[in-house]
Amino acid sequence: MLLNCDLGESFGSWRMGLDEEVMPFLDQANVACGFHGGDPLTMERTLKLAAEHGVSVGAHPAYPDLVGFGRRSMALSADELRSTLLYQIAAIDGMAKTLGVDLQYVKPHGALYNDMMANSEVRNTVMQSVAAYAKPLTLMLQATTEAQSHRSEASSLNLPLYFEAFADRCYDDDGRLLSRRKPGAVHDRDRMLAQVEQLARQSTVTTVSGETLTLQVDSLCVHGDNAEGVNAIREIRQLLADD
Amino acid sequence: MLLNCDLGESFGSWRMGLDEEVMPFLDQANVACGFHGGDPLTMERTLKLAAEHGVSVGAHPAYPDLVGFGRRSMALSADELRSTLLYQIAAIDGMAKTLGVDLQYVKPHGALYNDMMANSEVRNTVMQSVAAYAKPLTLMLQATTEAQSHRSEASSLNLPLYFEAFADRCYDDDGRLLSRRKPGAVHDRDRMLAQVEQLARQSTVTTVSGETLTLQVDSLCVHGDNAEGVNAIREIRQLLADD
Amino acid sequence: MLLNCDLGESFGSWRMGLDEEVMPFLDQANVACGFHGGDPLTMERTLKLAAEHGVSVGAHPAYPDLVGFGRRSMALSADELRSTLLYQIAAIDGMAKTLGVDLQYVKPHGALYNDMMANSEVRNTVMQSVAAYAKPLTLMLQATTEAQSHRSEASSLNLPLYFEAFADRCYDDDGRLLSRRKPGAVHDRDRMLAQVEQLARQSTVTTVSGETLTLQVDSLCVHGDNAEGVNAIREIRQLLADD
Amino acid sequence: MLLNCDLGESFGSWRMGLDEEVMPFLDQANVACGFHGGDPLTMERTLKLAAEHGVSVGAHPAYPDLVGFGRRSMALSADELRSTLLYQIAAIDGMAKTLGVDLQYVKPHGALYNDMMANSEVRNTVMQSVAAYAKPLTLMLQATTEAQSHRSEASSLNLPLYFEAFADRCYDDDGRLLSRRKPGAVHDRDRMLAQVEQLARQSTVTTVSGETLTLQVDSLCVHGDNAEGVNAIREIRQLLADD
Repeated sequence: MLLNCDLGESFGSWRMGLDEEVMPFLDQANVACGFHGGDPLTMERTLKLAAEHGVSVGAHPAYPDLVGFGRRSMALSADELRSTLLYQIAAIDGMAKTLGVDLQYVKPHGALYNDMMANSEVRNTVMQSVAAYAKPLTLMLQATTEAQSHRSEASSLNLPLYFEAFADRCYDDDGRLLSRRKPGAVHDRDRMLAQVEQLARQSTVTTVSGETLTLQVDSLCVHGDNAEGVNAIREIRQLLADD
Repeated sequence: MLLNCDLGESFGSWRMGLDEEVMPFLDQANVACGFHGGDPLTMERTLKLAAEHGVSVGAHPAYPDLVGFGRRSMALSADELRSTLLYQIAAIDGMAKTLGVDLQYVKPHGALYNDMMANSEVRNTVMQSVAAYAKPLTLMLQATTEAQSHRSEASSLNLPLYFEAFADRCYDDDGRLLSRRKPGAVHDRDRMLAQVEQLARQSTVTTVSGETLTLQVDSLCVHGDNAEGVNAIREIRQLLADD
Repeated sequence: MLLNCDLGESFGSWRMGLDEEVMPFLDQANVACGFHGGDPLTMERTLKLAAEHGVSVGAHPAYPDLVGFGRRSMALSADELRSTLLYQIAAIDGMAKTLGVDLQYVKPHGALYNDMMANSEVRNTVMQSVAAYAKPLTLMLQATTEAQSHRSEASSLNLPLYFEAFADRCYDDDGRLLSRRKPGAVHDRDRMLAQVEQLARQSTVTTVSGETLTLQVDSLCVHGDNAEGVNAIREIRQLLADD
Repeated sequence: MLLNCDLGESFGSWRMGLDEEVMPFLDQANVACGFHGGDPLTMERTLKLAAEHGVSVGAHPAYPDLVGFGRRSMALSADELRSTLLYQIAAIDGMAKTLGVDLQYVKPHGALYNDMMANSEVRNTVMQSVAAYAKPLTLMLQATTEAQSHRSEASSLNLPLYFEAFADRCYDDDGRLLSRRKPGAVHDRDRMLAQVEQLARQSTVTTVSGETLTLQVDSLCVHGDNAEGVNAIREIRQLLADD
């Protein structure tokens, strides 16, 4: 099970995320492409940092909403969404190549990620866009109970998929993340480590109601926003190494 | 002598330029990359239009100044300028490749073009950025009396150059364009055609003071903003074909 | 019955709308505030033009979506929406005052207008924001069969309302506009003039199914995007003057 | 001598500055207006925070350059600059009034501030814009040896001025700040406190070459970017209180 993290989300003079501290522990860096964060100079720096640590790089495209950090759903047409995705993927792909870095995958950001998981039309446009892109890339989406259906949607486009799970979030019985507004939505350290271990060893999670859910997971999403997040990543890395 | 034109400068709901009418007469389309004009969907459409007419495509990157249409000089650091250029070149390159179009060259836009011609530090950064880009591209700049010096700057970077001239603009004795604020800065139809013919046959222009200046020109910049411009392009194309 | 029109929607070098030709026929100009169109210089020019023709000025705020022209619904929180509205209203209010123009009302633009009509939470936030603004302003919304309910929502906030109808759009039996995707959604010239006359004399419209619907209308929304629109406005103005 | 500080420079999800910690020690808050920092929600919060602490509020307008944080000079025309300033001043003025806060002054930000001090055309446009604004406001500029000349420029427009000095920056013999690239450009704690004391008691600074320069100063610019800056402000406040 790999570790992926959203990085390169600073913008101009504004810093976000402890990218330098987190990068050494990651396998996959989801790099912002300028539409929710990540100006061109930040993108360059993040790509170089990933290269130094041998971390695989993915595009992390978003709705065009800088002030909302891509966290607000936007009603784009399919044409608008496709071209918006291709633009961002192309921008990071060409910058990566210029630095000798090989772009591997695409993970949509924020509201676009949520819309992709919840809405089959959005997901269809995302899948077709990534599949259409000049360079073969893998799409990362959330491991849910619908994974098999997502797999068949993607295979008709010859689009490889990564499925990811979340280390610190409680799942409901449908395999979705429990809303942050509900009690117990975010795990404390011990429950987080237990969830990671269970995912790694048994490919299951225990849901909010106590059910056991099977989730085939390629990658684990972790967060490097602050010192606490960095510590969690270090502990998860240790746990997976011991496994 | 080829004909090049700035295209794809619409943005969202705002239309600019008679791209459909102009494209059939062009050899080279300088396509806006989103920073002064040209949203992702407009870029896609412009790339498709160029492909339909077998027109060669160049990136037309600009300072990040949408409201000023890239026409206002901005004091970017060399790092900022390089990454800003690479981002825009990469975005159009990857979108072009996805549509089966092969990006050929880069022509900076507006104030960035002027700064590149007037300021050797800016020109150096532009040259290094284009030369560094993952795919070999040609840089287009203005044919002036300093062309030889520009050629040697570029050759040390293994960067090929296109030199362009302007059909409808009067030149001063230094081979620069006469400021638009001065009388006679923009030629009428007859003087424009005469200048084009002279450039094509003799590789010279007659300057505002009547001097004859040698300009080796690969491409001629024409404008498709309005019906008058489209007519001029048609006449220039006819004249060059007759040649 | 007054005539209102969206104006000042040019942005930087991009022109939109025949503002100069339309302004003489209007009573109310809905002036874009920079978030979907209307940069500061365009706002100044539009305010001056309105002043020259004695046309009343309203703020025309939008979602922050320049490339989408404010036509794409965005999931803003109530706090985000309120501050986004106050910013835009304040910007145009202060610029108007500086030019001796007295801002009168607020009409939300595009997707925000639609969301306000369809979603009571959004409408509540819009009403509270306009009512909270430092200067007393009137909110313009669409005349529907729910007008009485909207009136009581507003009166609890001491917020005066304008109700507007659309000259060229066919209504369904709920008093909403027939979707543009349906046949007959947009009236031809004769049906448009007939609808205006009926609204002016009888305060009713005939719906798509032939029903008669009562709509108390303060203002009629007209469009000045092109020559055809300008002609329609001229004819509507004549018709209302004859009344 | 008052203390002023740039505040409200966060943008969306990106935090900048320790506004809550700094505000209690200030007399004047220069609040960003959205063009280099400060989205509408941040502006509201900053205005409320200033009101809670009885701190006077000024507009802090900038060039339209979010990614460059307004630190890059931009070649705006006088018309563009005037409307850009009025838009930002109006936006914060109306938002302030809505919250019961009375906008007092304008202090241009970053590259615009530097251009205003260095270029009399830019300064003239800034002065005329602030003087033209609907509400009488004071313009804040840097106390230099040219203060008398600036005063007479402003008095012809009936524009009141605040002159500010910098606590931690070394002055050259012309009363300008020593470039940050030069050694000794930024004072350590002791030299900073000494400079503040000298300014407060004797209205002079000691320049880099040891000369004594008279500077009539209304306000002292301090920085709250980090914990060190907050400590410096606390010490300066204490020193001025003891005086």
